[in-house]
Amino acid sequence: MKSQYVVLSLSGGLDSSTLLGYLVHQGMRPYCVSFTYGSKHNKYENKAARDIASFYNVSLIEMNLSEVFGNFNSSLLLNQGAIPEGPYTDKTMSSTIVPSRNIIFLSILSGLAWTVNASYIAIGIHAGDHAIYPDCRTEFYKAMDSALYLGTDKKVQMLAPFVDMDKKEVVRIGHSLGVPFQLTRTCYKDQEIACGKCGSCVERLESFAEIGVTDPIIYEIERTSML
Amino acid sequence: MKSQYVVLSLSGGLDSSTLLGYLVHQGMRPYCVSFTYGSKHNKYENKAARDIASFYNVSLIEMNLSEVFGNFNSSLLLNQGAIPEGPYTDKTMSSTIVPSRNIIFLSILSGLAWTVNASYIAIGIHAGDHAIYPDCRTEFYKAMDSALYLGTDKKVQMLAPFVDMDKKEVVRIGHSLGVPFQLTRTCYKDQEIACGKCGSCVERLESFAEIGVTDPIIYEIERTSML
Repeated sequence: MKSQYVVLSLSGGLDSSTLLGYLVHQGMRPYCVSFTYGSKHNKYENKAARDIASFYNVSLIEMNLSEVFGNFNSSLLLNQGAIPEGPYTDKTMSSTIVPSRNIIFLSILSGLAWTVNASYIAIGIHAGDHAIYPDCRTEFYKAMDSALYLGTDKKVQMLAPFVDMDKKEVVRIGHSLGVPFQLTRTCYKDQEIACGKCGSCVERLESFAEIGVTDPIIYEIERTSML
Repeated sequence: MKSQYVVLSLSGGLDSSTLLGYLVHQGMRPYCVSFTYGSKHNKYENKAARDIASFYNVSLIEMNLSEVFGNFNSSLLLNQGAIPEGPYTDKTMSSTIVPSRNIIFLSILSGLAWTVNASYIAIGIHAGDHAIYPDCRTEFYKAMDSALYLGTDKKVQMLAPFVDMDKKEVVRIGHSLGVPFQLTRTCYKDQEIACGKCGSCVERLESFAEIGVTDPIIYEIERTSML
């Protein structure tokens, strides 16, 4: 019989926070992991992940993979070029790809799920990231699910309930479930207050605007000047 | 065009050392990674990996994943029960499974391959490990290859040239290629001299005996008393 335990990566962003709210709403018992991997916004993400896990009263393990990711190239990582500003497009965002990030995170989640007898791991990937990030795509998800299932001796399956939704649908679900968006962290920059200009901030603001909900976080620049 | 660079996990054991010798023989340009993951024999493996990389004059990166694997259960890990002795069977060796170990290693290799523009990653899994370790099986290899290929935007493919061979065939290949078996480390125990009694030592000794080659390493007990 499958357990209702599920291990998920909780970055503290909109997608994984909504995923956590969604899994709690489904009656599952989440077990969260927050990864430090050397990104510029990692310390703000980690704080957000702690706050959100605390909000939902669920377990959170923090794992530091900075040494591993220190060998990889990406503008998202510390000391490796500027985070691009402007709209969230292939061209502006491709430098923010971190090689194999979700592949590595999912692999580790599978080992932890095996250890704690959780039948599932979950990830908040969605269609808004398909063009830019290969390890957010539906075909990757299916292949990875198969690899993890076989590699764990059929103990662990992968859930990605948002994989075919766009970002605004994820935000709409989160909003309807009362996910504490005021605690989330989206901005890619190494600063406490969200910049409102990087691709990640712009995409977040657009998603809230499209569904007619006010984003509760504070931005460095006035939202009205951006949209 | 595919590069001839290949990133492989070099544990310092027979299989990965033979894999390195095989890839060099094939004219490929190897880039090795040695993982520390908290196993009882890790420090001896790491030394062997350094010696073998040095023998072949190839790059070696060492990565420490002890924090990650510290969350997992296995008798192979430090402070987690005794390494079983006796023949290498399902029953004796199942406690030595480290959840998702190869899955995690391969994921990291894929990110490194992407970073250094290597078209391939390689792993020395073989049929002798199929029964015990799910992430050494052919069906896992095929699914993982597909997941990594898609997750790296079709940049990285996986090689596992020994996946359908048994251990003695791997040793035969290594012997024929002049792999420096005297530098390798197989014993699972936390001691410098190989015990000759754990499942891993017994399997090694049997493989050498079956192909009629003398194992060049020194054992704690006389080989003649074991076979």
